[in-house]
Amino acid sequence: MPQEEASEKYLLNGQAEQHLTQVFSKYHSQVDSAMQIEFPRKDTKINTMLKYFLGWTDPSGSATNKPIPGKALRPILCILACNAAGGDVQKAIHAAAIPLEFIHNFSLIHDDIQDKDKLRHNRPTIWALWGNPKALIAGNNLRVIADITMNNLIRTGLSANKCLKLNYILTQACLEMIEGQYLDIKYEGQTSLTTELYLEMISKKTGALIASAIKIGASLATENQDKLSAFDDFGKFLGLVFQITDDILGIWGTEAKTGKSVGADIIRKKNSLPIIITATNTTKINQKKIISIYNKQSISQSDLNEVLNIMDETKSKQQCMDLAEIYCRQALSSIDDISMSDESRKDIESVALFLTKRQH
Amino acid sequence: MPQEEASEKYLLNGQAEQHLTQVFSKYHSQVDSAMQIEFPRKDTKINTMLKYFLGWTDPSGSATNKPIPGKALRPILCILACNAAGGDVQKAIHAAAIPLEFIHNFSLIHDDIQDKDKLRHNRPTIWALWGNPKALIAGNNLRVIADITMNNLIRTGLSANKCLKLNYILTQACLEMIEGQYLDIKYEGQTSLTTELYLEMISKKTGALIASAIKIGASLATENQDKLSAFDDFGKFLGLVFQITDDILGIWGTEAKTGKSVGADIIRKKNSLPIIITATNTTKINQKKIISIYNKQSISQSDLNEVLNIMDETKSKQQCMDLAEIYCRQALSSIDDISMSDESRKDIESVALFLTKRQH
Repeated sequence: MPQEEASEKYLLNGQAEQHLTQVFSKYHSQVDSAMQIEFPRKDTKINTMLKYFLGWTDPSGSATNKPIPGKALRPILCILACNAAGGDVQKAIHAAAIPLEFIHNFSLIHDDIQDKDKLRHNRPTIWALWGNPKALIAGNNLRVIADITMNNLIRTGLSANKCLKLNYILTQACLEMIEGQYLDIKYEGQTSLTTELYLEMISKKTGALIASAIKIGASLATENQDKLSAFDDFGKFLGLVFQITDDILGIWGTEAKTGKSVGADIIRKKNSLPIIITATNTTKINQKKIISIYNKQSISQSDLNEVLNIMDETKSKQQCMDLAEIYCRQALSSIDDISMSDESRKDIESVALFLTKRQH
Repeated sequence: MPQEEASEKYLLNGQAEQHLTQVFSKYHSQVDSAMQIEFPRKDTKINTMLKYFLGWTDPSGSATNKPIPGKALRPILCILACNAAGGDVQKAIHAAAIPLEFIHNFSLIHDDIQDKDKLRHNRPTIWALWGNPKALIAGNNLRVIADITMNNLIRTGLSANKCLKLNYILTQACLEMIEGQYLDIKYEGQTSLTTELYLEMISKKTGALIASAIKIGASLATENQDKLSAFDDFGKFLGLVFQITDDILGIWGTEAKTGKSVGADIIRKKNSLPIIITATNTTKINQKKIISIYNKQSISQSDLNEVLNIMDETKSKQQCMDLAEIYCRQALSSIDDISMSDESRKDIESVALFLTKRQH
C-alpha cells in the first residue's frame, strides 16, 4: 500500500474519534461496574488502598467520581475481540476482562515502587501514601483478586477446560510481562540499546498483557485456530503500537493531558524509543553529547533542551509515529481476512487508530 | 486426656526423631528434583536469582550442594496428607506440592524486602544482593512460575474440575497469607496486641499456606467431606503450631541452628507471641519497661537482657511451648477418627511433633 494512501486511511479524523468515544462509553461503565462487583466486599485497609488506586475512592475511602484516563483499555480490547470473533460479550465483560484489568493495576502498583514514581495520572501512588511494604502487599493482594476473578469464570457457564485455557493464557502473559519489566530495569542506563532489543522488551513488558486481552477475548468466542492465530498477531502488533505511542507521550506529551511534563522520560533517563532512534540516527558528536548528559547525576533544563533539539534535528518523533503507524497497519491487516460485522471492524479499527494517535 | 499422658505422647524422643528423619529424607529429594524439573529451563538472570534463592546455586549461578534447612515442609505435608487420605503420592509430588513451595518462596523474597532482612538461613537475601526492584520482580516471577506449575496439573491426568478446585484452594490461601502479612505490618510497634488478634494474624500469614498444603493433599485423594473437613482442622491447628515454634526460635533460637541470634525478634521489635504473653502476664512496672524499650530508636544489649529477664520471670517460653503442644494435640485429634495406615499416622504424628519441638 503506498504511504500516502495508508496515511489517509490511518488518520484519526473527527468521524473516527466520535465513533471511538461511543465504543469507550458503551463498554467503560459496564466494565467498571463489573470490576466493582467482582472486587472483594471485605472492608479492610488493603482494600481501601486498592479502591483508591482503582479510582473509586479518595485515599480516605470516600467515593469519588473522577474516572482515571486510559482505564479499562485491556478489558475493552478483550470485549471487542470477543465480539468480533462472534462470542458472547456479556461473558467477556463479567469475567474474563476483569482479571486483565486487575493484573494490569497490580503491575502498576509494583512499577511505581520500582520507579519511585510519586504520582500516576496526577494522583499520589500507593507507596507514596502508605509506604513501600504496604504498597508491595497491596499489589500482591490485587494479583490474588485477579486470580479469584479468574477462578470465578467457571460460574459464567464456561467449561472447566476453557477456564483452564484462559487461565493459562493470562499466566503466560504475566510471565512475559515480568520478564519485560526485568529487561527494562536491566537496560536502564545502557546507552547503546538497539531498536530490536527495545522492541523485544516492550513486546513483553506492555505488549504481552494487551495481546493476552485480545487472545482471551477471541478464545472465549472460537476454537478456530486460523481465527485465533489472526487475533494473536493483531494483539502482538497492537501491543507494540501502544508502547511506542506511550514513549512518544513520555517525551512530547503535555502535562495537562498526560500528567507528565515535556521531556519527562529524558529527565528519568529512560531508554525509550525516541532516544534510541535519536542516538542511532544522529552524528557521532551528538551521540557523545547524549551519552554525557545521560551519565550525569541529574539532568538540568538546559541538558533537556539540548537533547530535545537533537531529537528535533533527527526527526525522531516523526520516525516513532511512522513506526507506530506501520505496526497499526500490520495489526489491522492481520485480521483483514477474518469475517466479522462491519460494526465490529469499525470498533476495532477506531481503537487501533486511537492507540496510534492518542494524546494521553 | 490427662496432661501427663499427653506430655508423654507428645515427646519428640529418639525413636520419633529417627522416624522423622526417614520421612524427610524419603520425600525431600523427590520434591527437590520435581521442583527442578518444573522450574523453567530458560537461562535468564531472574532465573539465576531464583535458583540461588531456592538453594540450587550460588549467586553466580554455579551449582551448590548445601540444602537449606526447613525446605519443602509444605510439599511434604501435602504428600503426607495425600498419602494418609489414600491418594496417589506421585501425583502430589510431581505437581500439587511444587506450586506450594514456589508460592512460599515468593512470599519469603517479598518478606525480606519488607523487613529489610539481609540474611536468610545465613545466606544473603535477593534484595541484599541485587537491589529492591530486581528482588520485587524476581518474587513476582516465582509467583507466576507457581501458577504455571499449577496449570500443568492437568497433565497429571486430573480432571479439569479438580484442577480448578485445587487452584481455588491455593488462591484463597494466598489471599489469606497476604492479609496476614498486612496485619503483621499493621501491628508492628503496637504494644497492646492481644493473643487472640495475634493468633488470627498468624493463622493467616503462616497458617493459611500450611493448611492449604494439607487441604490440597487430602483433596487429591478424596471427595469425602468428613475426611476433608478433618484434614482442614488438622492443617489449621498445625499452622498455628508452626508459627508459635517459629516465634519461640525467634527469641531463644541459637545462631548456629536458626541463623538468628538470641533475642533477634526483640531487637526487631517484633510483636511475636512470647512478647505478647510476657506483656500480658507481667507486672505493670515491667509492662512499662517493655513499652519504653520498644519505643526506643534501637534496642541495646542491656535493653535486650532486661526484656529477656522479664520473659524468664513470666515463664513465657514455657507458656508458648505449652500452647504449641495444645494445638499439636488438637491437630492430631482432628484426624483421630480418620482411618489410615499405621505408617501414615506415624509419619504425620512425627512431623507434627517435629513442628512442635523443632530447634531450627
